[in-house]
Amino acid sequence: MKTETTIQGLTASLHPARSSRKIIGFVPTMGNLHQGHLNLVREAKKLCDIVVVSIFVNPIQFGEGEDFENYPRTLEQDSHLLADVGCDILFAPTVEQMYGKQPRLTNISVAEITDDLCGKSRPGHFDGVAVVVTKLFNIVQPNVAFFGQKDYQQLAVIRQLVQDLNLPIDIIGVPIARAADGLALSSRNGYLSEADRQTAPTIYQALKHAEVQLHAGETLESVLATIKATLSNAGFKVDYVEARQPNLQPVSNFDRDLVLFIAAKLGNTRLIDNLQVKFKA
Amino acid sequence: MKTETTIQGLTASLHPARSSRKIIGFVPTMGNLHQGHLNLVREAKKLCDIVVVSIFVNPIQFGEGEDFENYPRTLEQDSHLLADVGCDILFAPTVEQMYGKQPRLTNISVAEITDDLCGKSRPGHFDGVAVVVTKLFNIVQPNVAFFGQKDYQQLAVIRQLVQDLNLPIDIIGVPIARAADGLALSSRNGYLSEADRQTAPTIYQALKHAEVQLHAGETLESVLATIKATLSNAGFKVDYVEARQPNLQPVSNFDRDLVLFIAAKLGNTRLIDNLQVKFKA
Repeated sequence: MKTETTIQGLTASLHPARSSRKIIGFVPTMGNLHQGHLNLVREAKKLCDIVVVSIFVNPIQFGEGEDFENYPRTLEQDSHLLADVGCDILFAPTVEQMYGKQPRLTNISVAEITDDLCGKSRPGHFDGVAVVVTKLFNIVQPNVAFFGQKDYQQLAVIRQLVQDLNLPIDIIGVPIARAADGLALSSRNGYLSEADRQTAPTIYQALKHAEVQLHAGETLESVLATIKATLSNAGFKVDYVEARQPNLQPVSNFDRDLVLFIAAKLGNTRLIDNLQVKFKA
Repeated sequence: MKTETTIQGLTASLHPARSSRKIIGFVPTMGNLHQGHLNLVREAKKLCDIVVVSIFVNPIQFGEGEDFENYPRTLEQDSHLLADVGCDILFAPTVEQMYGKQPRLTNISVAEITDDLCGKSRPGHFDGVAVVVTKLFNIVQPNVAFFGQKDYQQLAVIRQLVQDLNLPIDIIGVPIARAADGLALSSRNGYLSEADRQTAPTIYQALKHAEVQLHAGETLESVLATIKATLSNAGFKVDYVEARQPNLQPVSNFDRDLVLFIAAKLGNTRLIDNLQVKFKA
């Protein structure tokens, strides 16, 4: 595995693959890699000739008071994990390499689907994601890019961005990787105290219980209320519990496929999860 | 010359050139071509192996009450002119081909340098330009793109966009083409009455006179005031007369290179022009 820290170096490293029209797969990450990320790389290896993984903790997608400064940076360990799973090129640029010394004046925003869920409590977050992903796409110029379904709203934003801007890239969403007890893997799980780590799987249990209730004909309203109560009783501070159509539009008929979304805090740690609930036609 | 009206058709037409790593040049236009546009194509022919010209009257860069509906559409004539000057592929998509049937949710905006000059009287105009140019860049995927210096602010916006989003494209600005009497060529000149067409070169005369005055040590303030008076006296409704540094930042020292900008209306026709004034070091 090659490691590149500059755009110029990455471009040079990719030149042979690009010249011979190889299929380039791309997995953008913020590092502190877990099996969820590694699944993205494994999926990319299956479908592409060359796999590039970026590790970049993107300052502009963190709000004031969020965890940019303390976000775990574990490049050496990440590098070993990526080499083991067959990553061809690791791109790990500095903030200056990505944003330069001149002020950035360009912003990209995706309307409507960023207004609620995580967009509500994280203003500007998805603009920051849209900008950095567009930059990384233009730098790497992959044929295919891979994103986790855990950040479901982010995936929807990126699909919209790609469609609206005619980015010549296929976007693949990869299912959520979970711990044995059901907790969705996340770099932020490392912030949890031992006690909170025991409580955290309540999120997934509540989602699975809701799926059963919905299939049994319970109303969506009551199911969402049950999730909220379960989380509050377990000690979570609920940010949102919502249902949406798979394209993030509001649910009109709840006998159609839908996605349940949770964001909730344990202590200072904000956890998110989601579950796609399918109904037979 | 091939003409393509769909993205799919264009992609297929460009495939051989892209596969053989030819240098692709791109000239985006709104059609109704004049020598200014054709100069862009000639410049592209010099530097590139394959030249693509797009003709697309982009609805989202026109404001309410502007001339989107009436903007001159002269595809057949344009097509002959382009063939004569050696254009390889004409891309002339419909609005639906460019924007699809689904609502567009993504916007791109470039801050600061779009706040004044044309940005002031045309809110949203440069967002519309940024979006369509980004889309066209992603569709054509050129190595080099060519823009006229007549739309100086637009050129600056595009350079900023390319820098901020790491678009892998070289941007070339081509000098303003003028009629024998000095009027900057523009599709909108066709809107002028015969009498107004006689008056219109006053803009360029005022710019050239200002250049002489500045070189003679006249203050910038007085030079700008003289231009305004000249235009008003000639029957123009002045939108702005401004000076900027070449990067569009405010002028600090006026013994440095600067650019003079004019936007003014004759009847309902809005004309713009600019002149780069150089000072010896």
